[in-house]
Amino acid sequence: MKSVRIGLIGTGYMGKAHSIAFHAAPAVFPLSARIELAMVAEVTPELAAEKALELGFQRSTGDWRVLVQDPDIDVVDICSPNYLHKEMALAAIAAGKHVYSEKPLALSSADALEMVQAAERAGVKTLVGFNYAKNPTVQLAREIIANGEIGEVVHFRGTHNEDYLADPNTPHSWRLTRELAGSGTLGDMGSHIINMAQYLLGEITELVADLQIVHQQRPLAQQPGQFAAVENDDQVHLLARFANGAMGTLESSRIACGRKNGLWFEVTGTKGSLIFDQERLSELQLFTYQGATNRQGFRTILVGPEHPDYAHFCVAGGHGLGYNDMKVVEVRDLIEGIAADRPMWPDFRAAYQVNRVLDAVELSHAEQRWVKLAEIGGA
Amino acid sequence: MKSVRIGLIGTGYMGKAHSIAFHAAPAVFPLSARIELAMVAEVTPELAAEKALELGFQRSTGDWRVLVQDPDIDVVDICSPNYLHKEMALAAIAAGKHVYSEKPLALSSADALEMVQAAERAGVKTLVGFNYAKNPTVQLAREIIANGEIGEVVHFRGTHNEDYLADPNTPHSWRLTRELAGSGTLGDMGSHIINMAQYLLGEITELVADLQIVHQQRPLAQQPGQFAAVENDDQVHLLARFANGAMGTLESSRIACGRKNGLWFEVTGTKGSLIFDQERLSELQLFTYQGATNRQGFRTILVGPEHPDYAHFCVAGGHGLGYNDMKVVEVRDLIEGIAADRPMWPDFRAAYQVNRVLDAVELSHAEQRWVKLAEIGGA
Amino acid sequence: MKSVRIGLIGTGYMGKAHSIAFHAAPAVFPLSARIELAMVAEVTPELAAEKALELGFQRSTGDWRVLVQDPDIDVVDICSPNYLHKEMALAAIAAGKHVYSEKPLALSSADALEMVQAAERAGVKTLVGFNYAKNPTVQLAREIIANGEIGEVVHFRGTHNEDYLADPNTPHSWRLTRELAGSGTLGDMGSHIINMAQYLLGEITELVADLQIVHQQRPLAQQPGQFAAVENDDQVHLLARFANGAMGTLESSRIACGRKNGLWFEVTGTKGSLIFDQERLSELQLFTYQGATNRQGFRTILVGPEHPDYAHFCVAGGHGLGYNDMKVVEVRDLIEGIAADRPMWPDFRAAYQVNRVLDAVELSHAEQRWVKLAEIGGA
Amino acid sequence: MKSVRIGLIGTGYMGKAHSIAFHAAPAVFPLSARIELAMVAEVTPELAAEKALELGFQRSTGDWRVLVQDPDIDVVDICSPNYLHKEMALAAIAAGKHVYSEKPLALSSADALEMVQAAERAGVKTLVGFNYAKNPTVQLAREIIANGEIGEVVHFRGTHNEDYLADPNTPHSWRLTRELAGSGTLGDMGSHIINMAQYLLGEITELVADLQIVHQQRPLAQQPGQFAAVENDDQVHLLARFANGAMGTLESSRIACGRKNGLWFEVTGTKGSLIFDQERLSELQLFTYQGATNRQGFRTILVGPEHPDYAHFCVAGGHGLGYNDMKVVEVRDLIEGIAADRPMWPDFRAAYQVNRVLDAVELSHAEQRWVKLAEIGGA
Repeated sequence: MKSVRIGLIGTGYMGKAHSIAFHAAPAVFPLSARIELAMVAEVTPELAAEKALELGFQRSTGDWRVLVQDPDIDVVDICSPNYLHKEMALAAIAAGKHVYSEKPLALSSADALEMVQAAERAGVKTLVGFNYAKNPTVQLAREIIANGEIGEVVHFRGTHNEDYLADPNTPHSWRLTRELAGSGTLGDMGSHIINMAQYLLGEITELVADLQIVHQQRPLAQQPGQFAAVENDDQVHLLARFANGAMGTLESSRIACGRKNGLWFEVTGTKGSLIFDQERLSELQLFTYQGATNRQGFRTILVGPEHPDYAHFCVAGGHGLGYNDMKVVEVRDLIEGIAADRPMWPDFRAAYQVNRVLDAVELSHAEQRWVKLAEIGGA
Repeated sequence: MKSVRIGLIGTGYMGKAHSIAFHAAPAVFPLSARIELAMVAEVTPELAAEKALELGFQRSTGDWRVLVQDPDIDVVDICSPNYLHKEMALAAIAAGKHVYSEKPLALSSADALEMVQAAERAGVKTLVGFNYAKNPTVQLAREIIANGEIGEVVHFRGTHNEDYLADPNTPHSWRLTRELAGSGTLGDMGSHIINMAQYLLGEITELVADLQIVHQQRPLAQQPGQFAAVENDDQVHLLARFANGAMGTLESSRIACGRKNGLWFEVTGTKGSLIFDQERLSELQLFTYQGATNRQGFRTILVGPEHPDYAHFCVAGGHGLGYNDMKVVEVRDLIEGIAADRPMWPDFRAAYQVNRVLDAVELSHAEQRWVKLAEIGGA
Repeated sequence: MKSVRIGLIGTGYMGKAHSIAFHAAPAVFPLSARIELAMVAEVTPELAAEKALELGFQRSTGDWRVLVQDPDIDVVDICSPNYLHKEMALAAIAAGKHVYSEKPLALSSADALEMVQAAERAGVKTLVGFNYAKNPTVQLAREIIANGEIGEVVHFRGTHNEDYLADPNTPHSWRLTRELAGSGTLGDMGSHIINMAQYLLGEITELVADLQIVHQQRPLAQQPGQFAAVENDDQVHLLARFANGAMGTLESSRIACGRKNGLWFEVTGTKGSLIFDQERLSELQLFTYQGATNRQGFRTILVGPEHPDYAHFCVAGGHGLGYNDMKVVEVRDLIEGIAADRPMWPDFRAAYQVNRVLDAVELSHAEQRWVKLAEIGGA
Repeated sequence: MKSVRIGLIGTGYMGKAHSIAFHAAPAVFPLSARIELAMVAEVTPELAAEKALELGFQRSTGDWRVLVQDPDIDVVDICSPNYLHKEMALAAIAAGKHVYSEKPLALSSADALEMVQAAERAGVKTLVGFNYAKNPTVQLAREIIANGEIGEVVHFRGTHNEDYLADPNTPHSWRLTRELAGSGTLGDMGSHIINMAQYLLGEITELVADLQIVHQQRPLAQQPGQFAAVENDDQVHLLARFANGAMGTLESSRIACGRKNGLWFEVTGTKGSLIFDQERLSELQLFTYQGATNRQGFRTILVGPEHPDYAHFCVAGGHGLGYNDMKVVEVRDLIEGIAADRPMWPDFRAAYQVNRVLDAVELSHAEQRWVKLAEIGGA
């Protein structure tokens, strides 16, 4: 059995989540290859060595370029801050590596397109970490829609709201600068709900958006009494039209008091509706008009072994999946994509479609008008 | 004790709801006047007589103009289709009557303004049936906001969605014509969520909207095999800015499968959040950061005697209010407004503010642009 | 159209709820008789006069015996404390009146049986205020069970828990004495959940119970620093067997922190399940195995016009019923029972069955053993 | 860094869950030892070899006695059917191994006691797989109780209900025989809710129980048209008294239509209440009387990094834990117990306390009476 050798760049929140998934995936799914945790790159050799030990990787380096060039690595897994994705991915592609990157793919759709083209020219495989679409419950939602069980989709309402910056005294960070993060909640969580909308309904063709920086400045953690300006959006709203004619509203906020993982959507069709709430990630609510009128209602489907992928986690229904389990599905897709040459989604091209929407939102806000996606790069 | 003598025009859905409230209110609230159910007007004398008996009114007429002119009537209660509100209200005002009208007040803001001016000139009292704001649970929400308990409000998301036209085979009706109904779900249920947003946050100053007729034609009930065009919106979305700087999304649909009374809102402030769902009308969810971080969460407040108006219905908390109870509060406001000369809200002027937003939505859609409310009539 | 003339004894919590219902019922339901609010009795003539005015009754008296003897009264409505029910009901029956009594019917099953026999001998109609069974949502539950939609019922779990005595500093009252109240939460709220179990499943044939006084004494409101002993149960549990073979657990508490109207039940059959929560009184959850396995789940049915009695309150579904609306249904049953000679349920005999269970619970606890209902009086 | 070498017996539902946890745990938690997946035992060498490959173990055997005797194994992990636990555990203990066993520990409390005594004599470590108590959300519940935040606990209501045998046509299996499974749902899921009650409140001292076989026979999968008798309980109820004076009801069913993992509890204290539902395993509902009366309600705490153990899974709150994550915590406890000599709970002695309650339930039912736990073996 062959191996897929992983080189991980960045060991923060996402680096750890990927590592847990790399460990668990082979026990959960029958895979076409072994996963070999080859190397970790961090900002210093010491930190890299410590994290390699902690996360179960064989080797480590304080220079991500060394990792990218290493001949015994098949996949470069990019878990670094957003502004580094492009440079790292291009270097990895140039070295002939497959690339597994966290989202958003890039700070602009132009950058994302450059990455797409490089990967397609090089013939390497790519996967972007929009993990919420990997949830068996969400896969079930897509299956119900694709089957026509709720008729033709006419409406989407989605949010991805959290409150991690609700407190105005939370210090400034790289995430709040244009240069290092690009947009604010738009690119951070907004990219998830945009990807989700595309996964479930298809492409957005037109939109109008509004966004706002609510807390204009924040304290500098290292310089008591000093403040720095917040440069990107705290909350963003958009009205969208989809290629299939459906209307939608999408929203993201990083100051939504009380929301911890408020990725939430409702999809309405001509024959039924679906509701999903990531804070109850193992439940899908479905309404249809089947049966007697006086017995109808939204039903809560608990995800179980009759639904996509769940049976590999547990033979009994309703036992519940967790956040890290979605990354396990994503890693399965990565390994099968590479070892069994299966298509991977969302690849760089799909993630570029998210970046196009992000750009359209910012353009719409800047010019206070409806924007057609056709105005933004090429599809 | 004096009497307030009611003349009711229209005995359908709303006419019955008003009647139940007129009967129940004196047993629920201590009122400053007796309610005398003086007269019913319907489209024929026979129907009027039948309904007067059924709903407990003393007299009846097949001609609403007779009712409006009757010297022994103090309040004209208009529960007729929307397109008749203006003519009836103007006639009632001309006859010196107070007017209690169902919503939306008029088919256009120009019409609404004419009604406002007539009422103000005549010095009669007016009240418009935006009953959802009368719910003690919603009054509690407003109190929490007004107290600053959730800080400064930065965000509103509201819907009023139902599914009464979700089935494309539901026949055509007057509600689907421009002439008789004006806009579609926008004026029907959308006016409720707009009024609610204004009640909780204050005026909308700017908006951009999208709307759609999803089912372009519907069968004619009386002419098998024949169809008529649907002339007004099945679903509508808008992005709003409020005078206080807050952002909002509002939405209404009459084809939202599974929703029976989906008047729903979430209000986010800088220190907390509120969530309300009319389908669970006796609950308010409140999040604040009070107490230890690891003990925080949205709490479900069951409305009870410590909240506005509830104690008059029941001395025990959590026993639950129903739809008709909101009309009872509304009738209390009507009677106290007239008999004790208390201010009434929403009066014609407040309802006119709703009509201005309705017009702005249609203009925004027609011209595909942001519209300032200042463009629509005078404030 | 004839009249049913009501004489109300007691104007507290229940007296007011009955009054609201008497006022509203004729506007909600087509009734076979007019309701005439003839007379109120209270503990003093002054209070009686004040309450008659407030609640809309014609006459008043400070002596309930006067009311009972009044020739112009058809129904004596007993809303006094429990210990007075028997004396008042027997006097009313002796005077040939129909009796509408609050629950529990009596302080013991022996007393209840005496009342049943008196009423049956006199041929008067009786109705006892177990209002929760009048809820259209609960009627729907019964219909689903009766139709066999959940198969044969094998299990019932029910609670009626509130927290009105959770605070140990809440003062002592008549409710805490054996002489005036009989049992504690058992007779007060426990009688509701027992009646509900009987309504849905039929008779209990055997039980074993446990009960406890948690707060042994409480302060005397009028004598600072003084305490009196609590003489009846704060919480009670029982295991039951039903005549149909089903097993059940029933529970009541008056110290259940956070519960405001925790009348809750789950009914499991061989083909499905039902869940009801009075704090969300317009919702019924239903699970059946119909349809594909991977589309099953508990569905939330919002009560609407296709369900029993609801359409009289509102033509639109999901608009929500409230606590007082259940009393309106109860009053409809009272008036139709008398004016149209329809059977009334629960009458004194049905309420006696509740009292038999109450006695069995206390005997089981006293002797620490299973008790057959056959041991308690005659069925 | 030393290793803890695992020998796994049985690779079904639980064997796989343990394997996933063994793989994931080192990436989630910093552990005091490496986990070495040494050997798998199954009923044939072929199956064992296949499963070793699938689950990532080094060696395999068709004879569990070989595994137990293997000198390069430190822990024997017993995931076999219940009736084999005793024999395997005693053999493992005799060979000086630590033992990690699935629940229930044994078919009777006498057997369990024998196992406890053998383990204590041999000085080996033991851990039993009552994984639901490992959930950070449940640990939080215990912390809240232990801190006195809900006052003195006066009441517990718990269920563990599923529907895996709700269909009467589900075939007969070893689980339905006394010899191989012991009791039915009582030992299977009932043991979980009993363990949970003990974890949260302490020991049960007295109980009375009722149980029932609802479906008396089931088809034999291999012999069409043939049926075998069901020998153990489909549903069981008990009333309990705890050492601290609290009252409780516990219940388990394997025929509870619609329940997929209905481990549910409510704990009431003198100052507050807690509610937990395993089907929403990342949420805890807490009610206390803190703050203004008119702002109180049950709050939904989403488990996050400020709660026990969660931060190791994810740095962001509300992201959700899954079923397998509880086994990861359990494995952490196993490894730390052995490698760092930390106490492990629930060990064989704690699991024996569960078996004593199981025996008391069966005795209570057999003799139709209250049973004191003191009657069952020694504490």
